[in-house]
Amino acid sequence: MIRADAEALDRDDPLRRSRELFELPKGVIYLDGNSLGPIPRSVYPTMEDLLLRQWGQDLITSWNKAGWIEAPQRVGGKIARLIGARATEVVVADSTSVNLYKLAAGALSLRPGRRKIVTEAGNFHTDVYVLEGLARLAGATLEVLPRAEVLGAIGDDTALVMLTHVHYATAEVWDMAAVTAAAHDRGALMLWDLSHTAGAVGCDLNGARADLAVGCGYKHLNGGPGAPAFLYVAERHQGAIATPLSGWMGHAAPFAFEPRYSPAPDIRAQLCGTPPILGIAALECGVDTHLSVTPQAVAAKGRSLCDLFIRLVEDRCAGYGLTLVGPRDVARRGLHVSFAHADGYALVQALIARGVIGDFRDPDICRFGFTPLYLGHAEVWDAVEILREVLASRAFERPEFRTRAAVT
Amino acid sequence: MIRADAEALDRDDPLRRSRELFELPKGVIYLDGNSLGPIPRSVYPTMEDLLLRQWGQDLITSWNKAGWIEAPQRVGGKIARLIGARATEVVVADSTSVNLYKLAAGALSLRPGRRKIVTEAGNFHTDVYVLEGLARLAGATLEVLPRAEVLGAIGDDTALVMLTHVHYATAEVWDMAAVTAAAHDRGALMLWDLSHTAGAVGCDLNGARADLAVGCGYKHLNGGPGAPAFLYVAERHQGAIATPLSGWMGHAAPFAFEPRYSPAPDIRAQLCGTPPILGIAALECGVDTHLSVTPQAVAAKGRSLCDLFIRLVEDRCAGYGLTLVGPRDVARRGLHVSFAHADGYALVQALIARGVIGDFRDPDICRFGFTPLYLGHAEVWDAVEILREVLASRAFERPEFRTRAAVT
Repeated sequence: MIRADAEALDRDDPLRRSRELFELPKGVIYLDGNSLGPIPRSVYPTMEDLLLRQWGQDLITSWNKAGWIEAPQRVGGKIARLIGARATEVVVADSTSVNLYKLAAGALSLRPGRRKIVTEAGNFHTDVYVLEGLARLAGATLEVLPRAEVLGAIGDDTALVMLTHVHYATAEVWDMAAVTAAAHDRGALMLWDLSHTAGAVGCDLNGARADLAVGCGYKHLNGGPGAPAFLYVAERHQGAIATPLSGWMGHAAPFAFEPRYSPAPDIRAQLCGTPPILGIAALECGVDTHLSVTPQAVAAKGRSLCDLFIRLVEDRCAGYGLTLVGPRDVARRGLHVSFAHADGYALVQALIARGVIGDFRDPDICRFGFTPLYLGHAEVWDAVEILREVLASRAFERPEFRTRAAVT
Repeated sequence: MIRADAEALDRDDPLRRSRELFELPKGVIYLDGNSLGPIPRSVYPTMEDLLLRQWGQDLITSWNKAGWIEAPQRVGGKIARLIGARATEVVVADSTSVNLYKLAAGALSLRPGRRKIVTEAGNFHTDVYVLEGLARLAGATLEVLPRAEVLGAIGDDTALVMLTHVHYATAEVWDMAAVTAAAHDRGALMLWDLSHTAGAVGCDLNGARADLAVGCGYKHLNGGPGAPAFLYVAERHQGAIATPLSGWMGHAAPFAFEPRYSPAPDIRAQLCGTPPILGIAALECGVDTHLSVTPQAVAAKGRSLCDLFIRLVEDRCAGYGLTLVGPRDVARRGLHVSFAHADGYALVQALIARGVIGDFRDPDICRFGFTPLYLGHAEVWDAVEILREVLASRAFERPEFRTRAAVT
């Protein structure tokens, strides 16, 4: 394969025009959209209107006039189209961690006789931490098990199985329908973390009969740093699921000032405090970039980019100590590719210094994200060439690449 | 008194230049800064830099380079100066409702033998709702009592007393030091909601030996619609207090990817998910407007504005069915003034139509906020004149003012 082959793939790419929807710095190959997606060009005029007109001029009346109060449901309804859910099943709120807490607690409320929560060791750590905190307060038991032992641990005492659909490090994908069915067979509920799924890989929550899900707004959805997160509650559980985070926006009548809590009968029951309008506005721009294409086209191009990267690295960077993490088959992975390397941290810093932005995850994982809306196959080729040069020249051994930053 | 007297007060006002820090619509007297503060002029250039340079060009590197990761503590440290706390005792995070949940749960962890939480009937409803949700999950008891019965209900079984310092409707202020001491006498902890306090009235958390506090970013702090909230944990409780919302940002080493949760030893333990950078950036602009003056000057001018409004309404609008809600003595109230009126909703709508923006709170409360940084005494005079005209002409009886909006 030569670079011209990659260029040919780009010429035939049905998503090639999507790149114009984003602002990207010059001279950079951005392989970290799985951590922080770049800014959609629509964010700036949207924020200008929000700040100068809606907040600046219309002030408090914008809660009604500009639709601020419905924003969590409106944007949730758009995200629903990317994850195989109904518009009435998804809402934007809080952070992924807070949403996970709400829904895991809700699962305990739906399965009152059962007190066990099962998750995977090596799941993204905040998911495990939040389940730990909930289990302690609610008097539940948390079992954190190796991937291969998760399904076998689901028993008649299990209220909830909580897994991340696309693994943050290995990118390995769980079979959503099969795992959900296995949980249901034992009477347990299933909660999926879609942080690396939404806007990236195929996802059919309704088709899998998934009960609950949460996900992140700032990765493949391009919602900006610390964007609000989303959550999904299957229609059949709405009205029955109880959240301990029973704030006023989840009340059946938030502005009636009733003395006691009475939850909304629908997905709004999962709202808590006042919705973060600036964050939701930016997130809506990001979600809208996805609605101009199909999730199928995104997933297909993503597989093509990942497959090209893996093949090129294995071919052109052989012998330099890189080991692919996760499955070789791109149909079984999400849109980031990790290679383990003994000097991984420094290697990633050396690549960043040359304009190839990936990230590092302890202990030795160099992670590269392949986001179909704004990356092309030729960039993948160029990134691998730069990787090869850095490895061959051992540039990553320079001392300046070893200083650890606060955020890695 | 005539308008010229109000104008004279404005000429002598040490805060008269602060108005230039804000963008306000022309032809409007904005008496709703206690609900949504207007936009500081610095927000627009700040957001431009955040969007175009930090997010747009520097992308993921801004977590370190632009200080995003420290933003919750940096802005929390600034808010600390407005509420009598140390910089290391305050952090910006989540919503007021979520923060209340965290700290109330934390109080239960600090008082393991005690299971009772006491609060006030008529407290802002989301506070009561959140305590209800926590009590149910944690197996605690919530007592919601009339204001006069709260102190007497604190017993040896009480883990936490939770009150709002300035009442959202009546504006009545609790004596923070005395009430905190009463709670401590019985071994209970004290949690204050400062939503109508921060940036408005005097507050000395350390002086009162308050244990815990939460507060809102979008009212007197001018952080924008749905701005992130803040919370305070007295230094003596840090390290000991446990939060069930144990997300990765509260971990001692968020980027070490440790398998189990180990809380940060300081205020960071109260962080949960990824910080909402857009919201925090706008909030920082709002907080900065307060740091250019003193909290004492703000509180003094606020009392002067409220006193003028009450006197003028009682004088010039007598006989039109308005009844002052809350104490007459402005030293015992926060910076909003409520009058009950049988046709309150329509009255507020009629005032809005004439450019005097207040808000309505069920069942009959017309609420007007007096924010010292951008309001003057002459505006108070003008607002009362318009109120008098609307009452005298009975303009509020027109049918178009009776249609209830989603948000009131």
